[in-house]
Amino acid sequence: MDKLRVGVLAATGMVGQKYVSLLEDHPWFEVVYLSASERSAGKIYEEAVKGRWHMEVEIPEAVRKIKVENAADIKSARGCDFVFSALGSGPAKELEHKYAEAGIPVVSNASAHRHTPDVPMIIPEINPDHIDMIPIQQKNRGWEGFIVVKPNCSLQSYMTPLYALHEKFHVKSAVITTMQAVSGAGYPGVASWDIIDNIVPYISGEEEKSEREPMKILGRIAGNEFEYATEPKISAHCNRVPVLDGHMATVSLQFEEKPEQEEIIRIWENFKGVPQELKLPFAPKHPIIYRREQDRPQTRLDRDAERGMAVTTGRLREDAVLDWKFVGLSHNTVRGAAGGGILNAELLRAKGYL
Amino acid sequence: MDKLRVGVLAATGMVGQKYVSLLEDHPWFEVVYLSASERSAGKIYEEAVKGRWHMEVEIPEAVRKIKVENAADIKSARGCDFVFSALGSGPAKELEHKYAEAGIPVVSNASAHRHTPDVPMIIPEINPDHIDMIPIQQKNRGWEGFIVVKPNCSLQSYMTPLYALHEKFHVKSAVITTMQAVSGAGYPGVASWDIIDNIVPYISGEEEKSEREPMKILGRIAGNEFEYATEPKISAHCNRVPVLDGHMATVSLQFEEKPEQEEIIRIWENFKGVPQELKLPFAPKHPIIYRREQDRPQTRLDRDAERGMAVTTGRLREDAVLDWKFVGLSHNTVRGAAGGGILNAELLRAKGYL
Amino acid sequence: MDKLRVGVLAATGMVGQKYVSLLEDHPWFEVVYLSASERSAGKIYEEAVKGRWHMEVEIPEAVRKIKVENAADIKSARGCDFVFSALGSGPAKELEHKYAEAGIPVVSNASAHRHTPDVPMIIPEINPDHIDMIPIQQKNRGWEGFIVVKPNCSLQSYMTPLYALHEKFHVKSAVITTMQAVSGAGYPGVASWDIIDNIVPYISGEEEKSEREPMKILGRIAGNEFEYATEPKISAHCNRVPVLDGHMATVSLQFEEKPEQEEIIRIWENFKGVPQELKLPFAPKHPIIYRREQDRPQTRLDRDAERGMAVTTGRLREDAVLDWKFVGLSHNTVRGAAGGGILNAELLRAKGYL
Amino acid sequence: MDKLRVGVLAATGMVGQKYVSLLEDHPWFEVVYLSASERSAGKIYEEAVKGRWHMEVEIPEAVRKIKVENAADIKSARGCDFVFSALGSGPAKELEHKYAEAGIPVVSNASAHRHTPDVPMIIPEINPDHIDMIPIQQKNRGWEGFIVVKPNCSLQSYMTPLYALHEKFHVKSAVITTMQAVSGAGYPGVASWDIIDNIVPYISGEEEKSEREPMKILGRIAGNEFEYATEPKISAHCNRVPVLDGHMATVSLQFEEKPEQEEIIRIWENFKGVPQELKLPFAPKHPIIYRREQDRPQTRLDRDAERGMAVTTGRLREDAVLDWKFVGLSHNTVRGAAGGGILNAELLRAKGYL
Repeated sequence: MDKLRVGVLAATGMVGQKYVSLLEDHPWFEVVYLSASERSAGKIYEEAVKGRWHMEVEIPEAVRKIKVENAADIKSARGCDFVFSALGSGPAKELEHKYAEAGIPVVSNASAHRHTPDVPMIIPEINPDHIDMIPIQQKNRGWEGFIVVKPNCSLQSYMTPLYALHEKFHVKSAVITTMQAVSGAGYPGVASWDIIDNIVPYISGEEEKSEREPMKILGRIAGNEFEYATEPKISAHCNRVPVLDGHMATVSLQFEEKPEQEEIIRIWENFKGVPQELKLPFAPKHPIIYRREQDRPQTRLDRDAERGMAVTTGRLREDAVLDWKFVGLSHNTVRGAAGGGILNAELLRAKGYL
Repeated sequence: MDKLRVGVLAATGMVGQKYVSLLEDHPWFEVVYLSASERSAGKIYEEAVKGRWHMEVEIPEAVRKIKVENAADIKSARGCDFVFSALGSGPAKELEHKYAEAGIPVVSNASAHRHTPDVPMIIPEINPDHIDMIPIQQKNRGWEGFIVVKPNCSLQSYMTPLYALHEKFHVKSAVITTMQAVSGAGYPGVASWDIIDNIVPYISGEEEKSEREPMKILGRIAGNEFEYATEPKISAHCNRVPVLDGHMATVSLQFEEKPEQEEIIRIWENFKGVPQELKLPFAPKHPIIYRREQDRPQTRLDRDAERGMAVTTGRLREDAVLDWKFVGLSHNTVRGAAGGGILNAELLRAKGYL
Repeated sequence: MDKLRVGVLAATGMVGQKYVSLLEDHPWFEVVYLSASERSAGKIYEEAVKGRWHMEVEIPEAVRKIKVENAADIKSARGCDFVFSALGSGPAKELEHKYAEAGIPVVSNASAHRHTPDVPMIIPEINPDHIDMIPIQQKNRGWEGFIVVKPNCSLQSYMTPLYALHEKFHVKSAVITTMQAVSGAGYPGVASWDIIDNIVPYISGEEEKSEREPMKILGRIAGNEFEYATEPKISAHCNRVPVLDGHMATVSLQFEEKPEQEEIIRIWENFKGVPQELKLPFAPKHPIIYRREQDRPQTRLDRDAERGMAVTTGRLREDAVLDWKFVGLSHNTVRGAAGGGILNAELLRAKGYL
Repeated sequence: MDKLRVGVLAATGMVGQKYVSLLEDHPWFEVVYLSASERSAGKIYEEAVKGRWHMEVEIPEAVRKIKVENAADIKSARGCDFVFSALGSGPAKELEHKYAEAGIPVVSNASAHRHTPDVPMIIPEINPDHIDMIPIQQKNRGWEGFIVVKPNCSLQSYMTPLYALHEKFHVKSAVITTMQAVSGAGYPGVASWDIIDNIVPYISGEEEKSEREPMKILGRIAGNEFEYATEPKISAHCNRVPVLDGHMATVSLQFEEKPEQEEIIRIWENFKGVPQELKLPFAPKHPIIYRREQDRPQTRLDRDAERGMAVTTGRLREDAVLDWKFVGLSHNTVRGAAGGGILNAELLRAKGYL
């Protein structure tokens, strides 16, 4: 199988760099195109990120010399089989449309189209069937390309564990507090003055995303658009904390029918989804890891589990107000951003959409 | 009025040092006695804390030359009108008894006697009348002294704001996540290796304390002992985060009768308790401060409000699962430890128990 | 004595906010005028800094309602007896000229005029007599106002201790490594992603300033301009470290004539300058504090010594290559920035230039 | 070739855990024996480190079930071909002797025997020939085993770059400031209270080690013992900074004969030692990496270069006092501790001593 030719939009930012890094030596995808804002356009990639390469691995050899194009110039991406979009929400709104219109599928991290009625928002272990909206979207709009998005990083730490239980016991409500890494704000993102020896209990827009996006993911295709789920009701408190990577969540759940503790753990430990069945290259073997130590997961120790693609849970115990409570953790720039986007693309490839 | 002669038990530890620092120039109390473990006994105080003085202010002149006594030697404290106990829970259990037996009142930070049935656990703005248990305690046990305790630092960030509303609207349940400073673990406490770039979602014993102690504080004297309240039900998730001082809590509340948002804020802003009426020296003018900025309270910016004695709240907003949610913050070693103990002693003094 | 009417240029930035905070209740100066970039002009101050007030104290009441002017509009400052300039180097170059031309003295933090030949760069304990250049500067340029500057924050941690010894023993050379706080970069300044769990051994322009500015400070007036000193030769390594405030320096010194250890300590402990003689309001009683503990100064414990205006030294010991080595520490936004500027203004006031 | 059977003394501490982790799947060595203090003796390894496993990788399968022996019981190690010692200096002094006496070679991290006259202290790229002391040591003492040590972690960041130049241009003196990670203090090591938002300019014994150990490494075998070098003279300032791993050093050098800048860089880039010639498994391909970016090396970005075994240098520039200055960085628990010990053992194996 020839590798698909892939572009990364907004390739010089934090998430773009993560895409470029994670895609090195990918078995199915080859980065052939990189775009950024006008300021970087025309430079070769290694020059464009000079002095602002933020990854702990070096720039992959294969992309160093690629000339960075202007992201606004859709035509420059003509040779791509599809593109990953790490665009900011502002530019994403219109540009992603144009790509899809031009016949280039867009696998996006941006929030711009997460609630567009015919755009699927995918966590491949949860709602892989939502990609069946693609032909409808294409028909709705007369596109040859399409747009598929992934949800916000903040909800990855609880969404898969919650879903695994929801299938069987119906979760009625969830009260959640997140403790989110600075990398979630991109670069330069959070000023060091604001976060050394400090907690900031507010991240613009994050609680709304954490509460509402799950409803679409748990929803279903109804005609030409998605019908949102109405439960679980989710209350989210989102906090910025002084860690580099890794979003942690404390989660209290109320069930329609309260399961046993060991039943929950067994479900999590045995949970598999379509990516595992299809053995997608970026699929973690265990999408949900349960740690029995009383003080795990910890952000630094567990964020890289399964190369940053697993969610690690722990501390499952009775809740004095709701039914059960636990701690969840995921890597926000891998599973929660670039890695999640790549897994989406792998799903699309395996299902014949790419 | 002559100053009362005060001792500090376990004066060389983190909380003991905070007592010594905060009591400098206190208008009512004068530190005349310091004790510690056998290892330090016999040294003068400045020698005993040499190389392990952890405060950002210097050792007060008045205590530098005081000879440190062995905390186990009750007789050495004979000259004290009362003592502050910063003892660990182990030694506190028996030693505090002995002091009370020997006629020396004990104002304690230790957890040892928090659930002893006839020992009052006081937050002076909430349950000052619980000190009426003192004569009963003395009669029960044939003591001339007595023991009064304060609750755990973790609950100070939500307990006063919760109580202010509970009085009027009855809080049925509360789901709480704390983000607690390293100073809460004493010294050396949390290893830097464990907390730089990390969150630890577990603190031994802390969730139990955060859930159960409020029930005693909200309870009432029933004959010879305290009857615990049965509501609100509290679910606590306790986390250690990389900040020096200041415990933050995210709080979701369910009410018997749901108040209006501005009503809650008004109640908090106008809240006063007995310490404010009595103008106790350590009483904050505003025990509860409400900040209307969307990103406050922040740990570093707000922990020192009213010299660390106020609780700062913010971000009051509707909760999708329960009724209202907000953020609370207090200084764990001031209001939550030594400052809270001093305020307890001031209350006892004003009420004639000291 | 009526208070002087004072303006702060660039009052909404990190250093500007520090000026505004430190000047609250100043006995000689009253802030009556605040300016900033065009974006903030026209707003009242509390609005202009809303959501970006970075101080741990509240905005002083007296300035909350002052209307912020456009810093480029010199005429708006007509009512000021003098101005503090916290302008960036770019705008400072020309604007400070214009103020001086317009008859308004400028006490500046900016680097723009530090090496302008007839502009004095003052540390009041070291070269207070350099203000005698003011009338020459005024004559050179036909100004009624004038410009006086202060040096870079990085050198305050070693410059006064070095000078105190240089007077008597002539320091021939100094090898210095600084460990500088993030607040030195202003706001937003250093991205948290760049400094959590990291050291950055480079700060643009900082080593040049640390090596060259001392030569002007130690120089002398020669006709119409300053003649720079030629010794000590200084080699500086400047590093950014993850602390909020406080620049630390490790310093190795070589002398013309090697003093005794206790002689050095005695000189430091007894060191006084003109600000101490004149009892200027912001003058620290002890400009140089020597700590005999083996592990002091420490950044967090010592940066606030004498309200941030003292330099704390420690660990004086023999150097295997040069003669003596020690550690110095100063508060970079107080002594190193706004506090240093205020002390300069106080000197100028006391000497009749304001 | 059969793998050598290896023991790790003090296997439950920070360095011991690093040994165990790094030795997983080692091509030449197989961990068959683990010892610790009496408290852990008798437990299987995974139990012994339960709740205090500090590595970011899991405990290797192959050692989980090994029964931990009492380090004081030499006989229990009989089956080992040699042992790595991560013992503290106190116990190491006598115990390492006993192992060597019992015929078991000791490759040690401890400081106890670093200055024992007939014990080689090895950095394999610098003084591999010092292992020729082994037969002399054995003869001196009538041992079948032997002791070989490695130097302190603090000097690894500058020692190899310095040596590479010293060979050709003779370094006369070096003024060095280190910024050392908390992991260098072991576990629990540095209290978080002491290092969040702080720099501590003192580490007990570290400056003496940093100045004196290089003299033995650069020395030579003279009869029955090592003769120390007398130059370069080294002055070290050692600081603890809030980073997890990675010791950085700023270095100023004076040469007998001052080289050209590009000559230095070329020497570093081309530097190879015996480990590279022998292609030892843990040998970095490039023992010295020079980064031309103006702001590198950075602790977090460069500490893992060549799996933590390389020294990364940067910022070579003229020094105003001595000749040249630069920044060096190495991973203190890999190259500076366990990795360095393993490389020593590989050298010994390749040379027939194991």
